[in-house]
Amino acid sequence: MESKKIKAALLGLGTVGTGVYKLVHKRADVMVDTIGAELEISKILVRDINKKREGVDESLLTDDWKEILADDEIQIVIEVMGGIEPAKTRILEALHAGKHVVTANKDLLAEYGGELLDAAAENNCDLLFEAAVAGGIPIIRPLKQCLAGNEITEIMGIVNGTTNYILTKMFEENMSFEEALAKATELGYAEADPTADVEGLDAGRKAAIMSSIAFHSRVRFHDVYIEGITKITSEDIAYAKEFDCVIKMLGVAHNTDKGIEVGVYPMLLNKEHPLASVRDSFNAVFVHGDAVDDAMFYGRGAGELPTASAVMGDIIDVARNLKYGCSGRISCTCYKEIPVKNFDDVKNKFFLRLQVKNEPGVLAQTAKVFGDHKVSIQRVVQKHVEEKAAELVISTELVKEYHLKDALRELKEMDSISEISSIIRVY
Amino acid sequence: MESKKIKAALLGLGTVGTGVYKLVHKRADVMVDTIGAELEISKILVRDINKKREGVDESLLTDDWKEILADDEIQIVIEVMGGIEPAKTRILEALHAGKHVVTANKDLLAEYGGELLDAAAENNCDLLFEAAVAGGIPIIRPLKQCLAGNEITEIMGIVNGTTNYILTKMFEENMSFEEALAKATELGYAEADPTADVEGLDAGRKAAIMSSIAFHSRVRFHDVYIEGITKITSEDIAYAKEFDCVIKMLGVAHNTDKGIEVGVYPMLLNKEHPLASVRDSFNAVFVHGDAVDDAMFYGRGAGELPTASAVMGDIIDVARNLKYGCSGRISCTCYKEIPVKNFDDVKNKFFLRLQVKNEPGVLAQTAKVFGDHKVSIQRVVQKHVEEKAAELVISTELVKEYHLKDALRELKEMDSISEISSIIRVY
Repeated sequence: MESKKIKAALLGLGTVGTGVYKLVHKRADVMVDTIGAELEISKILVRDINKKREGVDESLLTDDWKEILADDEIQIVIEVMGGIEPAKTRILEALHAGKHVVTANKDLLAEYGGELLDAAAENNCDLLFEAAVAGGIPIIRPLKQCLAGNEITEIMGIVNGTTNYILTKMFEENMSFEEALAKATELGYAEADPTADVEGLDAGRKAAIMSSIAFHSRVRFHDVYIEGITKITSEDIAYAKEFDCVIKMLGVAHNTDKGIEVGVYPMLLNKEHPLASVRDSFNAVFVHGDAVDDAMFYGRGAGELPTASAVMGDIIDVARNLKYGCSGRISCTCYKEIPVKNFDDVKNKFFLRLQVKNEPGVLAQTAKVFGDHKVSIQRVVQKHVEEKAAELVISTELVKEYHLKDALRELKEMDSISEISSIIRVY
Repeated sequence: MESKKIKAALLGLGTVGTGVYKLVHKRADVMVDTIGAELEISKILVRDINKKREGVDESLLTDDWKEILADDEIQIVIEVMGGIEPAKTRILEALHAGKHVVTANKDLLAEYGGELLDAAAENNCDLLFEAAVAGGIPIIRPLKQCLAGNEITEIMGIVNGTTNYILTKMFEENMSFEEALAKATELGYAEADPTADVEGLDAGRKAAIMSSIAFHSRVRFHDVYIEGITKITSEDIAYAKEFDCVIKMLGVAHNTDKGIEVGVYPMLLNKEHPLASVRDSFNAVFVHGDAVDDAMFYGRGAGELPTASAVMGDIIDVARNLKYGCSGRISCTCYKEIPVKNFDDVKNKFFLRLQVKNEPGVLAQTAKVFGDHKVSIQRVVQKHVEEKAAELVISTELVKEYHLKDALRELKEMDSISEISSIIRVY
């Protein structure tokens, strides 16, 4: 086989960029066997070319995007800068210049995935993004190829390692949320500002991307209902254990007759569910299709080399498409237009904890309010009964979100109810 | 988009064939969106065209292979007959006639995968076989594409649903092997002759295929050391629980400096390992790569529609390759030649149960034999001590298989040892 060379440019040299750079070098010896060509990173776009970077060939560094864009030898642009701009503009410019793009940018894809994929298709270019959901775990390609014969009705996953680590520590070591977050920060799992993780924004972006692909219909970040894990307490964890459940922050999406339901929130999940045993910072995505039945994909959702693994798989695919002259072979697969339901109309089961006055009639009053709002109760248990106070632990049947919201609003104003301590959905 | 038609022939109309037939019809409405063409099964090869088959268009049935082979409109042959011959000859003839092949035939691939893939490459044809390992679970394509940037050092899996069902029932419901097998037969999980399942032959074929792909080097069925689960007893299960382990029949393959180690056998596996929570007839494949770290793929390893899901994914891939003129885009990936180690030289940890006479000095004698054969003992506990007899429960360190075999051969001949009740590897 004639040995050619495929040149790529790396945009960004942070954690993921460094991982990709290392991995491309580590795999140099097998590239001719794998893709019929050598693979070379010939330029790296960074903000500051004078910053010291160990193990990186400094002659490759540039801070001039136009230099990369104008270089006709560069066939692949690997965008690992993150954020919306300037990443978006650069990806579009690269595609319009006929360059193929591999990106790990979930923020961008969750907002502008459609626009970017359209640009790729117009230019017969590949735009691949396996790393954007669940890091190293193969999920985009399995959905677009292996499971392409299915109608997927459900996709849900633990797609944020930081929050899974925190919930695991709360569950297994009885840490409080604050203690677990501190530990996650210490280990580098959580960033200095952990908002995007603990408030579910990061998971929400991934939920948008993965449901778009699973259901063949564009779901955008703002379509996703989002609730973080900051309100989960040790008491909730204790109840979860009592019910043989764990609490996991899940991105959950269903394709129903009336539209797509998609949200990110903590959930009580039975211990026997395959996602329940996903511990620490691991991620997993669970899929239900009409042919495959249940399937799950498990692995590292973040980190230098796991994410680089996904990026490298995409680069290899781009290179194979170049070799066979079939770039753009699998582009946008959103050929349907399914509406996303207003989350208020979604039905869920709930676990609720109410702090009430220990007076006769409180339970009846509470039950009446739920009944008035069509919230059907599956179970009520009175706990922690003291002289003046008690706790009502309530499990509902499947109820519409807005019915529950209305009931809780009315309950909150009742004198006999001092606090609504927990509102957690149940799988 | 101009609507073309892609015609395929189905060889075999058993469980999987019927599933494929149904699924192709069920997905007819989205094929133009998915592959830019309609997909039609235009002929079905069966042994007896007069047999009644509900829901199947009888005009498609034929018992004449040559009719399919000579039909230039048929571009894809879907082989779901199983067995070595005539499947092998037909696949080779189809490839030589320029037809693409999708197969679920693990028996054939585990023996003749190299030959068949060579024939596919010579004829620029696709030969895809996602369904051959772990049924509906995407594993072949993730390995060949998503994880192509990794050096995979370990792949192991629960790749036989029947034995996993049996072991789950033994573990969770304290059934004996015989009771659990009877239950599996009743439910249709086990065949009338369960040998291929319970003796590990089926799993061995899958282990050969998946390690070939993971390590880029051909592993054949006869290279795989195989041991079934028929010797696993309720006592073994009880000890597993005591050690916080489960017992799973695993296909285990490692790529070491000295060659590939590959075998199928029951193993004690810590409860926290992701494979430990794979219950009932589910399958899962666990992979360790130098970039991705740990990953796992979970789902249905058999059954009409799950297997059809994998076949359908392959058909769609073949059709996309036809659309883009890139057939044969990913063919054989065994570009290395790594020797497979003699299993005697493989190191494992073992759990052993020995029934011994309750006499002074027995432990010392036993320990000496192990020591003489370089078998290092990690722990010995004397159990079930009666007046004349006792049980020694022994855990070894990592020892070479042949060292243990030699030690056990010598121990068996000692008067003070009445029985070696269990020899189970420990992960």
